[in-house]
Amino acid sequence: MKIAVCQYNPVIGDLIGNAGKIITGYKRAVKEGIDLVVFPELFLCGYPPLDLVEKKEFRDAVRLNAEEIAAITGNTGLIFGTITEDYQDKIGTGVYNSAALCYNGKIQFIQSKTLIPNYDVFDEVRYFESAKDVFVHEFRGERLGISICEDIWNDADYWKHRRYTVDPVQKLVDGKATILINISASPYAYGKRKQRYNMLSVLTKTDKLPLIYACCVGAQTELIFDGGSLCLNSSGKLDLMGKTFEEDYFIYDTHKEYPEIENVEASFEEEVLSAMILGVKDYANKTNFKKALVGLSGGIDSALVTYVAVKALGNENVHVVLMPSKYSSEGSVIDSLNLISNLGISSGNISIQPVVDVALGMLKDSFNGKNEDITEENIQSRIRGLYLMALSNKMGYLLCTTGNKSEIATGYATLYGDMCGALAVIGDIYKTQVYLIANYINKKNEIIPNEIIEKAPSAELRPNQTDQDSLPPYDLLDRILKMYLEEQRECDEISNIIGNRDVVKKVLRLVDLNEFKRKQAAPVLRVSTKAFGYGRRFPIVQGWRK
Amino acid sequence: MKIAVCQYNPVIGDLIGNAGKIITGYKRAVKEGIDLVVFPELFLCGYPPLDLVEKKEFRDAVRLNAEEIAAITGNTGLIFGTITEDYQDKIGTGVYNSAALCYNGKIQFIQSKTLIPNYDVFDEVRYFESAKDVFVHEFRGERLGISICEDIWNDADYWKHRRYTVDPVQKLVDGKATILINISASPYAYGKRKQRYNMLSVLTKTDKLPLIYACCVGAQTELIFDGGSLCLNSSGKLDLMGKTFEEDYFIYDTHKEYPEIENVEASFEEEVLSAMILGVKDYANKTNFKKALVGLSGGIDSALVTYVAVKALGNENVHVVLMPSKYSSEGSVIDSLNLISNLGISSGNISIQPVVDVALGMLKDSFNGKNEDITEENIQSRIRGLYLMALSNKMGYLLCTTGNKSEIATGYATLYGDMCGALAVIGDIYKTQVYLIANYINKKNEIIPNEIIEKAPSAELRPNQTDQDSLPPYDLLDRILKMYLEEQRECDEISNIIGNRDVVKKVLRLVDLNEFKRKQAAPVLRVSTKAFGYGRRFPIVQGWRK
Repeated sequence: MKIAVCQYNPVIGDLIGNAGKIITGYKRAVKEGIDLVVFPELFLCGYPPLDLVEKKEFRDAVRLNAEEIAAITGNTGLIFGTITEDYQDKIGTGVYNSAALCYNGKIQFIQSKTLIPNYDVFDEVRYFESAKDVFVHEFRGERLGISICEDIWNDADYWKHRRYTVDPVQKLVDGKATILINISASPYAYGKRKQRYNMLSVLTKTDKLPLIYACCVGAQTELIFDGGSLCLNSSGKLDLMGKTFEEDYFIYDTHKEYPEIENVEASFEEEVLSAMILGVKDYANKTNFKKALVGLSGGIDSALVTYVAVKALGNENVHVVLMPSKYSSEGSVIDSLNLISNLGISSGNISIQPVVDVALGMLKDSFNGKNEDITEENIQSRIRGLYLMALSNKMGYLLCTTGNKSEIATGYATLYGDMCGALAVIGDIYKTQVYLIANYINKKNEIIPNEIIEKAPSAELRPNQTDQDSLPPYDLLDRILKMYLEEQRECDEISNIIGNRDVVKKVLRLVDLNEFKRKQAAPVLRVSTKAFGYGRRFPIVQGWRK
Repeated sequence: MKIAVCQYNPVIGDLIGNAGKIITGYKRAVKEGIDLVVFPELFLCGYPPLDLVEKKEFRDAVRLNAEEIAAITGNTGLIFGTITEDYQDKIGTGVYNSAALCYNGKIQFIQSKTLIPNYDVFDEVRYFESAKDVFVHEFRGERLGISICEDIWNDADYWKHRRYTVDPVQKLVDGKATILINISASPYAYGKRKQRYNMLSVLTKTDKLPLIYACCVGAQTELIFDGGSLCLNSSGKLDLMGKTFEEDYFIYDTHKEYPEIENVEASFEEEVLSAMILGVKDYANKTNFKKALVGLSGGIDSALVTYVAVKALGNENVHVVLMPSKYSSEGSVIDSLNLISNLGISSGNISIQPVVDVALGMLKDSFNGKNEDITEENIQSRIRGLYLMALSNKMGYLLCTTGNKSEIATGYATLYGDMCGALAVIGDIYKTQVYLIANYINKKNEIIPNEIIEKAPSAELRPNQTDQDSLPPYDLLDRILKMYLEEQRECDEISNIIGNRDVVKKVLRLVDLNEFKRKQAAPVLRVSTKAFGYGRRFPIVQGWRK
C-alpha cells in the first residue's frame, strides 16, 4: 500500500486554513496515485485546541468542515485527526479526539482515541472521553489498525511502568490489522524522538506489523512539534523519516525495500536550536508579527536569543536595542556592537540613566531613608522593560524575553523588567546549555563574540556584580535544578547526591518562592520533558519548604 | 452520634501546621465527649496540592504525618483527608485522594475518592487514581458511608446531565450506610452553596439518610473556600450550617432535633465582598505580608480594592499612592483624598509626569516621528507600575492589582502597567458588579465617595478619555462577556440574543486577542463559576475568530 504522510503545520482554531491544507495534500496524493493519505492528530482544529473544544459552535464548525473535506474524496483514502461527538451520550462530555477515514465522498470510519493523556502539558481528560471500542477497518485489501498518539504509548513489552490498564494497539493486533497507523501530535523534547523510535521499533518487531507514525510539525505558542514522522517495517526497521522542524510530504510504500535510517536525532545543540528557531518563527507567523525585538545586554543570553530570532525571521527583521546604565561595562557595549555587526541587524542605543535618576528622585521621600537594596536594581531593569515595550508597541515588534531556565527557576530576573515580552525563547534551557549552544553556533565562525561567552555572567545592576554573588556556580546549580524540576526529586535525595544540603535547600527554596514570578512570565518554548509554563502546576501560596 | 465538624483553614504543603490543627481539633472534641471528628478533604496537605503530589518525599511526609496523627487517637473517631498510595499498583499513579478514619492509635479504614474531577479549576486526574471500590465502615453502632467531595456530585436523581457513569454514594446507600459523611474542598463561586444545598437536600431526602458535609475554609492563592459546612437530616432538612468565610468548629448530633435553617446564602454583594476580603487576608497571611499597597486612581475599581484590603488587613496596614499625570483630573485627586480620609489609611502622592517626560524624550528618536498612539498611554501606566513595584519592593507591601473582569476580558489594561501586582482582587467581578458592591458598601454611610461612583469611568491616559470611547457600554459589554465566558456561548448564539452581531464580534475578538496579556496577569480571586486564571485554558496563538 502506498501511503502519503502529510506532516503539515496547522494553526489552532483556523479550521478553514487547516482544511485547505488537508485538501491540498489529498489532491496532490490523488494525482500521484497514492492509496491512502494521512494527516496528524486533530489536524483539522490544530493541537492542542484546549477550551475551544468546550464551545458547541466550534465543535459544530469542526464537524461541518470535516464533512466538507470528506465530500471531495474519491476512492483514495484520507485519514485526518478531528473532533467527533456522540450526541446520544448523556453522561460525560460525549466528545472524542478521533481519526476520520474518508473515501468516496463520506467519512467511512471513525476511530477515537482510547488513552487520554492528562499529565504535564496534556490536559485532554478535560475535553475528551475515551473511545468505547477499537476496530480494524478494511481498505484496499489491507486491514488498517488506526490509533491516536498516546494510544501507542502503553506497550506492555516496552514500558516497565505503564500509565493505563488498556492497550488499544494490542486490540488492533488481535483484530488482525495488517498495517498500523498512528496519527500524533507529540510535543517536542530533546531525546523524545529517539525514545519514540526505540519504543515503536520494539512494538513493530513484536507485533510483526509495519507502522506509519504521522506527526504534525510547527509551534503552538510554547509547544513545539518537531515532525520527524516515522515509517517502520514489520521487523522494527526504520524505513523512512519525515523532515524535522519543517513541513514534509512523503510517500511510504509498504511493499518496497528501504535502506535503514540510523540517526533519528541530531546533537542536543543542533536539535534544540532548530526547535527554538521554529518556535519564534511560528509565534511570529501565526500572530502576524513581522519583526522581533531583543534588548541586548552584552551577555550571552540576549546574544543567543538574538541569534535565534535572526535565524527565525531573517536579519532584516530583527532589531536590538542597547540600554546602558552607569553600571554597564564598556566591554558590554563593545561586545554587543560586534554581535550586531556579525549578524547584520539594526540597532538602537538608549541610556536608561536619565529616567532612572528622575524616577529615584521622585521616589526618594517615599523610601523613608531606607538603604539601597534590590529595589534600585529592579528599577533599572523595569525601565529597560518600559523602553522595550514602548518600542514594541510603537513599531510592532515581537519582544523576545532573554531569561534562561536557571534564571527563571531561581527568580534571578525582574518581574515587569527583563521578564517583559511575548515569548521566552531560551526559557527551557539551563545556563550551562546556553553556553553549549553558543559554542556550537561559533563552531565554524565566531558569530557570538568570544568575549561574550568568556566573561563572568552579570546582570550589571550594581558595581562589580556577578551572578555568582547570589547563586551557586552554574554547573552545580543546573545539576540541582535538573534533578528537582525534571526528575521530581526532592531535598533529601538531591542532597545525598550533591553532598551539600545547605546549597540544595537554598536552591529549592528559591525555586518555590519564585513561583509567583513565573505565574506572570511569558510562555516558555518547551524543549525538555519538563518546562516552566503550562505543564507545571505548582501552588503559589504554600508552606511545604519552610 | 455526636459529630464535630472542624471547618478549618489549611496551608497547602504545610504538613506540620495542618497536622497541628487536626490534633488540636481532635483533642477539643475528645474533651467534649464527641463520637467522631471530621476534617475536610486533603486537609493534611491542603487543597489543591497540585504538583507537590508528584514528589515522593512529599507523599512520604504526608504518610508519616498521617500515621503520627492516628497514633494519638483514642476511641473517639477521627476522619481527615489525606493522600494515600498503593505501592503494589504497577499501572497509573497508584496515588489516591482519601479519607482516613482513625481510632485506637491507628488508621482503621481508608476510603478513597471515586470521582476525580478534571474540569475548570480541577486537575485531579493528573495526580489521583479513582478508588477501586467503596465500602461502609461500622463505628460505634453506626454504618459510616464516607465519600469525598465530587463523589457526591453525580446523583442521578438531581442531575439531568451527569459527568460520570458511577455513583459512589449510591453504593454507600446500597451498602446500608446509616450516616453519610462527605469531606470536601469545594471552591467558592456565588450561587454554589445554594445549589449544593438543593442537591444534598434531594439526595438525603431520597436516600433517607442524614449527611454531614464538611468543607474547608480559606483562600489558596486564587481559590477561595467558603466553609458553610452543611448537616442535613434524613428528610433533607438543613439542621446546621458552619460559618461562612471563617473557621468554625461545631457539633452535630444526629439524634437531636434542630430548627430549620432557611437562608444558606446571603446577597451577591455581601457574599462576594466577604470572599474577596478572605482572599486578600489569606494571601497576605500565608505569604507573610503584613501590609498592602494600592495605586489609587480616583476611579471606582481602585476604591473598591482599597476597601477590600482595609477590611482584610486593617486600615493601619493599607497604604495607597496617588500618581497623577497631566491628564489626571482635579476631581480624581479630591475623590481619592476623600476616600483616604473615610478609610483612615496612609497615602503618598508621586507625580509620574517628570519620569514620563524624560522617558518620552529618550525614546523620541527611536519612534521615528510616528504619531502618538497607545504607546504613550502605556508608558504612563507602566511608570505607575514602576512606582508601585518600587514601593512594594522597598517597603514590603503586597501590591493589589485593580483590574475588574470586564477590563481583564477585553484587555483594557496595560501589561506591566496597571496589571502589576501579586493578586487581582476584583478580577472576577464585572464592572457592573463593581458598582453593585460599591453601592452596597455605601448603604449605611458614604465610604466610597459618591463622586467616584457617579463619574464616567476613565483611564485618564489622554485628554477627555472615557472607557466608552473604546468599549461598548458596560451593561451591554458585561452581558456579552457573561454569555461568552461563563456560559460557553459563541458568536452566533450571543448575537441572536443581543441583536447586534458587530458589537458581539468585536467583544469576542478582544477577549481572544488579549489572552497573551492574561497569561501574564496576577492570579484572580475566583468568585464565579468561571474566572480568568487557572480554570481557563485558552490557546494564546490561534485563528478561530479571524
